[in-house]
Amino acid sequence: MGRALRCAHFGLGPIGQAIARLALETPGITIVSAADLSPDRAGKDLGEVLGLPRRLRIRVRDDMDRRLSKLRADVAILATSSSLSECKELLIKLIKKGLHVVTTCEELAYPIPGNQAAFKTLDREARAKKVTLLSTGVNPGFAMDALPLMLTAPCSEVRRISATRVVDLAARRRSLQRKAGAGLSVHQFRRALAEGNVRHVGLLQSTHMIAHTLGWKLDRIDETIEPVIAPRDLDTEQIRVPAGAVSGIKQYARAYRKGELIVSLDLQLYVGAEAPRDHILVDGAPPLDVTIAGGIGGDAATAAIAMNCLPKLLVARPGVRTINEISLLHRMNPSEMAAAMKRGGKYVT
Amino acid sequence: MGRALRCAHFGLGPIGQAIARLALETPGITIVSAADLSPDRAGKDLGEVLGLPRRLRIRVRDDMDRRLSKLRADVAILATSSSLSECKELLIKLIKKGLHVVTTCEELAYPIPGNQAAFKTLDREARAKKVTLLSTGVNPGFAMDALPLMLTAPCSEVRRISATRVVDLAARRRSLQRKAGAGLSVHQFRRALAEGNVRHVGLLQSTHMIAHTLGWKLDRIDETIEPVIAPRDLDTEQIRVPAGAVSGIKQYARAYRKGELIVSLDLQLYVGAEAPRDHILVDGAPPLDVTIAGGIGGDAATAAIAMNCLPKLLVARPGVRTINEISLLHRMNPSEMAAAMKRGGKYVT
Repeated sequence: MGRALRCAHFGLGPIGQAIARLALETPGITIVSAADLSPDRAGKDLGEVLGLPRRLRIRVRDDMDRRLSKLRADVAILATSSSLSECKELLIKLIKKGLHVVTTCEELAYPIPGNQAAFKTLDREARAKKVTLLSTGVNPGFAMDALPLMLTAPCSEVRRISATRVVDLAARRRSLQRKAGAGLSVHQFRRALAEGNVRHVGLLQSTHMIAHTLGWKLDRIDETIEPVIAPRDLDTEQIRVPAGAVSGIKQYARAYRKGELIVSLDLQLYVGAEAPRDHILVDGAPPLDVTIAGGIGGDAATAAIAMNCLPKLLVARPGVRTINEISLLHRMNPSEMAAAMKRGGKYVT
Repeated sequence: MGRALRCAHFGLGPIGQAIARLALETPGITIVSAADLSPDRAGKDLGEVLGLPRRLRIRVRDDMDRRLSKLRADVAILATSSSLSECKELLIKLIKKGLHVVTTCEELAYPIPGNQAAFKTLDREARAKKVTLLSTGVNPGFAMDALPLMLTAPCSEVRRISATRVVDLAARRRSLQRKAGAGLSVHQFRRALAEGNVRHVGLLQSTHMIAHTLGWKLDRIDETIEPVIAPRDLDTEQIRVPAGAVSGIKQYARAYRKGELIVSLDLQLYVGAEAPRDHILVDGAPPLDVTIAGGIGGDAATAAIAMNCLPKLLVARPGVRTINEISLLHRMNPSEMAAAMKRGGKYVT
């Protein structure tokens, strides 16, 4: 086996930490640096930040880019923000430094109107440096876009794609509960919604990925967010939602083509959601009616998919790639990883 | 839009016919020739063979390769046999002629011990002529291999993959019922089994595809076939199975790694099967428990997936490609097809 893949981690929130923990367990990968702006984490040893019983002798830096010139890494793993505009400047620096980038930034999952210029800039920079940038995650990136797309492969006609993802927030991290407004009064929820503080980012990206990949020109996409009201007091380890307060959200994207509903995505994130699941319906010939009982796990799955992308990233064409362009994604194969490292930039997919 | 993709069809059994019907409906594709050895079809107009109300002015040839030198085509679509050794000679001629090939030949879905030399020969010839050969279909090729693999993408660990496919043969074509031994007495079934006349071809290919893609070295694979005995008289449009006779088969592949069962494929093909479905269980972290209610349709789906592969085939690396190497497969996008035609051999995936 050749040398290890050197990963530089940016952002050590719950997802960033989960990715770093997986990186530590993965043969052929070595963490060379870690950065996080939060005063809770910056300055500490990475082992402590990850809740490990041992020190890793990697001090979590309190800046993202001051010492980039000294960084010797192959891949940057960026898990800082859902917002493309918040990530863009750092992404360009990382690309200019010659690093491949894997990111969980939701807005990078697929170009949508308003973000296309930023995609073009990043793509141009990445192609110039012959590196690849890939956004990945369970949602967007898998459950409500790549997987539904894959499920159209056996169809000679597709009239509509519907995906419903129901997540019980009871056991999920506090920050996700907060993003879904769990625990707020209805009044507080309305204000938070107006301020853009409750919402999942990604339904528009998923909708555009599906439509564009299948060659569908959309008339319009409607996105709506509604509060779910707790029918009774809901107590979880991390949060108490009194009856009548908000337990989470239902967020919908509805895309129309020639006046017909053609993509319908329903995301339900709330405390006490019954029958958590992913359900995908391909209304086509033949139809496919697919249920994932319990749903595809959240943060752990997003961390895993980010890691599993690494060998694919190393052999992908330079530029900004989206998940629909990558060859069949699967749990990382250690020999594939080693082969990708050996190939050293000779892309094959 | 540029010129159409010229397809030459070899084999017009039920699957070959279904593919040809789809090809006729697909903008950007034109059928330039068709061949079938069966006296029922050879010599007739293709429209008649396909059961269309119109002539297509394409006479179904009664040979496969005598007039290949005159053929002007881009892609050969081969749906003649499950057996690689039966297809190999023609495949080499088609490749040498400079044609891409899509085939539903099950043994080409993935190289397994015993077939690897033939794969190498075909791969060498295809690379020399810069064309691509791809085997495709629902099973093998999707339901019990590519889709289970894709479902491991969100996992940081996979301990076992199980796939169960239950197909009610009542409404399926007579040749598939025959392959499953439906209607035979138990005695006749035993003889047909010993002679190799009842079985599905593909479980070993699927098992190897899964294991090899995930980097699993297998100790061994056990494949078994059992008859299903009709509990009562079963009447279908095409066949009557008396109580006590064979209504179909249960065929299993079990693969072991370090003594542990790691891939488990169950294919149940019988008349009167209850709750037809595809069920995939990824025993991993996180686990995924996926059910496709009713199952993924058979022949129509295999024909569709073969068509949907065409744009991917045109931009794939030359050589023998397997479905796990192709970028995310989905219902064909007409613009992708046109773009692939324009690219004319400049492969991108």
